[in-house]
This record gives sequence, C-alpha cells and structure tokens, in this order.
Amino acid sequence: MSRTFPPLREELRGIEPYGAPQLSLEQAPVQLNVNENPYGPSPEAAADIARAVGEAAVSLNRYPDREFVELRDALTAYLNTSGGTGITPDMVWAANGSNEVMLQLLQAFGGPGRVALSFAPTYSMYPEYARDTSTQWVVGHRAEDFSLDLDAARAMVLERKPSVVLLPSPNNPTGTALPPEAVAMLCEAAASYEPGGIVVVDEAYGEFRRAGTPSALEMLGAHRNLVVTRTMSKAFALAGARLGYLAADPAICDAIRVVRLPYHLSAVTQATALAALRHAPELLGRVDDLRVERDATVVWLREQGLEVADSDANFVLFGRFADRHATWQGLVDQGVLIRETGPDGWLRVSIGTAEEMAAFRQALTHVTKEQA
Amino acid sequence: MSRTFPPLREELRGIEPYGAPQLSLEQAPVQLNVNENPYGPSPEAAADIARAVGEAAVSLNRYPDREFVELRDALTAYLNTSGGTGITPDMVWAANGSNEVMLQLLQAFGGPGRVALSFAPTYSMYPEYARDTSTQWVVGHRAEDFSLDLDAARAMVLERKPSVVLLPSPNNPTGTALPPEAVAMLCEAAASYEPGGIVVVDEAYGEFRRAGTPSALEMLGAHRNLVVTRTMSKAFALAGARLGYLAADPAICDAIRVVRLPYHLSAVTQATALAALRHAPELLGRVDDLRVERDATVVWLREQGLEVADSDANFVLFGRFADRHATWQGLVDQGVLIRETGPDGWLRVSIGTAEEMAAFRQALTHVTKEQA
Repeated sequence: MSRTFPPLREELRGIEPYGAPQLSLEQAPVQLNVNENPYGPSPEAAADIARAVGEAAVSLNRYPDREFVELRDALTAYLNTSGGTGITPDMVWAANGSNEVMLQLLQAFGGPGRVALSFAPTYSMYPEYARDTSTQWVVGHRAEDFSLDLDAARAMVLERKPSVVLLPSPNNPTGTALPPEAVAMLCEAAASYEPGGIVVVDEAYGEFRRAGTPSALEMLGAHRNLVVTRTMSKAFALAGARLGYLAADPAICDAIRVVRLPYHLSAVTQATALAALRHAPELLGRVDDLRVERDATVVWLREQGLEVADSDANFVLFGRFADRHATWQGLVDQGVLIRETGPDGWLRVSIGTAEEMAAFRQALTHVTKEQA
Repeated sequence: MSRTFPPLREELRGIEPYGAPQLSLEQAPVQLNVNENPYGPSPEAAADIARAVGEAAVSLNRYPDREFVELRDALTAYLNTSGGTGITPDMVWAANGSNEVMLQLLQAFGGPGRVALSFAPTYSMYPEYARDTSTQWVVGHRAEDFSLDLDAARAMVLERKPSVVLLPSPNNPTGTALPPEAVAMLCEAAASYEPGGIVVVDEAYGEFRRAGTPSALEMLGAHRNLVVTRTMSKAFALAGARLGYLAADPAICDAIRVVRLPYHLSAVTQATALAALRHAPELLGRVDDLRVERDATVVWLREQGLEVADSDANFVLFGRFADRHATWQGLVDQGVLIRETGPDGWLRVSIGTAEEMAAFRQALTHVTKEQA
C-alpha cells in the first residue's frame, strides 16, 4: 500500500483552499467583505429570471447551446453601451465567473514553460490560476501609491517575456485604475517578442470607475493582443449567477474554444444572464449611489487620519494599523465583517448601503477608541 | 510585432474544438447523437425548478454557498438509493458537469510529470482533460469485444504508475460495463507504488446498467483511492443544467477544494439541481423504458446481421461498415442524426423514444438497401 494518501501533486500539499472567511448574518449582520453589490434584483427582475428558467427547464434533458449565441449577442450589445464601440459577437466569450474565463485564458496561453505576470499587491486568485495551469508566476511590484511604474513594468515585460500579463483595472484590493497609456505600452511590449503575450485587463469592477477614467474596451481596435474581462458579479448585482465574460480579437475567442469544456455554460445560466441583461438599467441602477457612497467613505476615512488608496471600485483599502487583525476582529465583534487583505497593515471594506456604511463608521470609531 | 498571433500553446495550434456535429431539428428531426434522455422534465417539475430559481434570484447579488451544503446532502441521499451505502456528505463533491469534475481531479492529482491512463476505445474527452492539465496521456487497448484484459491492464498500471486511471463503466462509446473484480484489481495495483494513483470509475451512464451489474459505489468502503463519478445529464434528464458529481474518500474531496475555482457552482445551478432531485422518481421514471428500448435495439441490429456491442448504457455501438461516413450521411439524409465515433467502421446510436427508434430502424433499413 502506498504511504501517501491522497496522492495530491506535491506543490498542492498542505495548502488551504482559497476563500474569504465566511460568517453567518447572525455573527456579522453587516457583510462588507467580498465586494458584493448590496442591492439585490427587484421582485420583477427575480420573477423574470424565474420565468426564463421555467421556459428553459422543459427542455433541460437536452444539452445547452454550446456557443451561447443569444447570450453572446446580448453581452455584445451591453458592452457597446458600457465603454466599448464596434464590438461584435465573435469578439465576446463567457464562462462560469470571470475566474473560469481567466483559467481558460491561462490554459490556452499559459502552461508549462510559460510565464504569467502581474504587479503586487493584486488579486490573490491570480497566482492560483497560474499554479493550476502549471504556468510560472512572476510578480512585479506597484509603487507606494499602488500605481504602476510604467517604465519598470515595461522593462519587466521585455525581460520576462510573459505569455499572459494580468492587469486588473481597477486593481483589487487597492481600487487603483490603470491609465490608458499603461495598457497601450504593455500591449506593445508584449507584442514585441516571439510568440508574444496577451494583456488581460481585468475590469471586474470597471462599471464603478470614476468619471474621466476610460475603459480598456476603447482600445481593443488598436491592440489585437488585448483582452478585457468583465463580470456580472459586481455592478450587475449577480454574483450568485456566476457569469464572467471578455471581449478580444476573434482569434483569441477561437483559441479559448480549444480548451473550454464542452457545454460549459448551462441552459439555466444562459437563461438567467439573458433575463438579467434585459433588466440591466435596473440592476445597474445603484452603481451611481455606490460611487457616491465610496467617495464619501474615502473622505471620511481620511478625516479619521487614516491612509486611504484612491478607488475606482466598490471597495476602499485603508490603513495602516499596527495590528490589522485586532482591528478586523474588533469590527467583527461590532457585527461588521470586512476583509483582512492587501499589504500588511491595510484593510479592505466593500461599499454597502448607506445604512451599512454608517454601521461601519460607527464600529470603526468604537474600535479605534477602544484600541487607542 | 510578433509574427505569431494569437500566442496559443504550441500543442494546441490547429486543433479543432471538441464537439459533436450539431444539426438543427429542421435538418435532422430525430437526434440520437449525444446520449441525451429523450424525456424532458414534466411541466410540474419545470415549474418547481422555476419556483426554486425565483426564490434564489432575489439574493443573486450575493455569492452562492461555496460548499453547496444543501445540494451535497441531497446528492448523498440520492447516491445511497442508487447503488451506494453509507455515503456521507463529506464524501460527495459536485461541479459544472462531470467534465469539470474530471478536470478538477486531473488538476489535483495529474499535472506535469504525471500520467493519466485509460483503455481505448473510450471517451474522447479524456485525452483533452489530460492535455489541458499538462498530464501525460497513456492509453492501453481493450479486447476485441471491448472488455478489459485484466492481467494486461494491471501490468500496464504497475509499469506506467499512473496518478489517475480513468475507467468509464459503462464505457463510452462501447456501452461495456466493468466487472467488480476489475475495479478491485486496478485500485489495488494503483495503491501499490508511491505516491499511488486514484482510480476514477466514470458512471455517467451508471443508472442504465443491466440487472446484475453492480455500481462501483458499493466498493468505496474497500478502496480509499476509488472515485466514482456520476452526472445528472443522462438518466436524470438534466443535460442542460450541467451538474456532475462524485463520491470518494473525504480526503479526496478536500484535495479538490484546493484547485476548485471559488464559488464554482452558481446559486441558480444549486437551486435547479435541488429541485430536480426532489423530482428524482419522475425524472428517472423513464430509465426502465429506455433500457427495454436499448435491449430491443441490440436485438434488432443483430437481426440485421450487424455486429453490436453489449450495452449497459443508453446508447448502442454497432458496425461494421466499410464506409461508416456514408451510412452516417445516409441516415442524416433520412432525418436521423447519430454519431460517427468509436473504432473505424462503427457507429453509435443513442436510445430515444419508441417513435424515434422506429424512425432510426426505418432509416437504417432504407440506407442499407440503397448502399447494397
């Protein structure tokens, strides 16, 4: 009998599964930890989703449309109203959450002997996608204010020749958006060696960007190695439906088809996302409120004498705390769950309703006094 | 500018995406090509699914239960009525289709420097899972009657020391079930070297097995490296919902947690599968009819002088045709779509309704006469 059980890959042994700590609503009634949109679908939207799924349900014995044609058309139309122009359905791809989109991109373009590159602090799942596709993970570092040092970033791309560059904009957990010149410069750098790399601008939080911050969707025509990913989980208030998508050159979508699992998007998921897209104005209707609440949160935290990163997202990174875990735990004790993430000393709070943010401010004031 | 675009991995270039040819119902009204269950959910079951999704929809702004506790409980209860005994929820795992379950198993237990082994002819997606996880794909061969030569299979396991052995039972596309002694022998062989391998018995079509053919679920207690996978796509008539699952030692489920994408099962998928499981007797109610129809199809094909593989599944492999593509095309011209798969000269027909099988018999008689 083999002594090793289970025969897990060596590099996975002893690793804890990814996941934000989850607490029940009894333990923490104010949940500001996973950047959800606090405003759920209206009863009308929920009923429309149920109706659409009911129609799909009578033929659930059949496999779904492998090419999700109707959904791709609807996502295309939406993108052309949300920062994009001239996007066509053959430029759009979708999967179960943008993390499946990212995994597919790394399966197609990463893998053994290839490099994926990003700049820390950044989204903690990226190294996991790299690990799970046996892609070498290389990480540069952001400047003190969490922006990219463009010359250093370009030099790193030219030196390490990554097959995939992962650039969240706005960045998680810092909220920092990328200037268009950064996207252009890194796309050009990644196209300058053989066989070249793709540049993935992860706009999971793109709809929350401040006025004047452009979407990388505008630059698709200029850079064929540019991929812009989006999700319905955040601004669209549909985290429970798991629908991520991207826009890119049609050849990139065709490449993903080679590695995608057949029928990866269920008929139920397709029906749900299509119904939600018909309710886009309503589901996205609170984005402006959340941006106002975010900007007010940044101002208030600064008034408390804290350091706060500029944010184009629906969360705010703030610090620094000598013992951030003590502050996090103090907030939990007050019924407010935020996220202990980012560089040491910092904490991240998601933007909730006005009432939830008032509860957060009150709890933080209390904890700060107690710990003073 | 790099000349290569897109910078796809070398081994993926020029590969066509997996997928059975799809024709519209106008082109081929009788679709017997992808082993679907021809009987869809009843209006009552569809309405219950819609109701369940409607209830989930009001909180779709929140992430789903990452551990799908309620669904795991329901799948556990079902498995204990479908060949299993003593299965507990910590032994059950689920994902978007059993192909995502397989991918996760290969991500956790396969990978660079490791081997996945199966015996051809077998399911054509297996080498794709191996390729997409950079696992070396090694394939042995089945006997003339598509059974496993147990001594040769054991010798191959001991020689190649696979980390993952993939054993469909019944096998696709041949319909051949594995005897319990084969499972026992290969589990023991795969546990005899370091770090050992897991043995995955893929029972996607398990519910269609003939009386007297046991499920490998019965053997879970005896072999901790045994994994039994199932799907709701076939007997359960829920291909459109994409829900695959497995039963195995809890340590194997914990290992998969390390590589699974967080929140991989949407709230909508969980609600749909749970509602379907409440209607299990109805959804599974036509399995006996389909087994009768399958057995009659085997008899009829043999009466036509054809070779036919014994089948424990909802499809039948038959041949041999000097030009199988001509026969396949002839059937399509008669409005009947079957699958051109398996060893050269053979064709596979899925078992449909009595009316669909009558149409298949009539079309095949016509085509055989025309081509005589």
